[in-house]
Amino acid sequence: MVKKINLAEKFSLFSSHWDPKIAGELNGQHVKLVKFQGPFVWHKHDHEDELFLVVRGEFSMEFRDHTVSLGEGELIIVPRGVEHRPVAEREVHVLLFEPASTVNTGDSPGERTVEHPGWL
Amino acid sequence: MVKKINLAEKFSLFSSHWDPKIAGELNGQHVKLVKFQGPFVWHKHDHEDELFLVVRGEFSMEFRDHTVSLGEGELIIVPRGVEHRPVAEREVHVLLFEPASTVNTGDSPGERTVEHPGWL
Repeated sequence: MVKKINLAEKFSLFSSHWDPKIAGELNGQHVKLVKFQGPFVWHKHDHEDELFLVVRGEFSMEFRDHTVSLGEGELIIVPRGVEHRPVAEREVHVLLFEPASTVNTGDSPGERTVEHPGWL
Repeated sequence: MVKKINLAEKFSLFSSHWDPKIAGELNGQHVKLVKFQGPFVWHKHDHEDELFLVVRGEFSMEFRDHTVSLGEGELIIVPRGVEHRPVAEREVHVLLFEPASTVNTGDSPGERTVEHPGWL
């Protein structure tokens, strides 16, 4: 049986911030769900492009030379090698699509690093 | 400049059914948008897993031995090698994540085959 994934239901299963959870896997890529508020750390991924899709709320993706504001139903693809920092004024729910190898803090490991996200 | 993609805006750019359009690319994968209504052809993809996320409306994914009904904010990952047929009573707007190599009709080429989808 192939099962569907209801995003709102999956988001209701956790409340932690900056703590991505795996919701699905395909072709070596993960579908991850994350909630966050406030600023993240500046970082880049040397080998992975990363997609952010806003499911609920809004946030800004800061780059070193510009900022992109995203609302529900909007997505952004951050190319590998590009420094970025997501920032949310209020809690936002975001779907990520990225290679399974991707670590959230990229080249800036620290207290917010989640090496091995759990499955929902 | 990294630009965002507004899904509703992108969907407003075309009206054809069963005619996937590329909205983004990352890690060798495509983000495609498609509108459809009615039944598609039964097919499978031998080498690609395929993700369907409902952005607007609803549809059913038929498998040979069960059917999964999907509404807005729900997704399904169809594993490679598994026969499937999407069916929608009314027009539905769906986002696809899949390898850039994926052809919509898989192993059942025909009049609905789109070998080289255009970019939005």
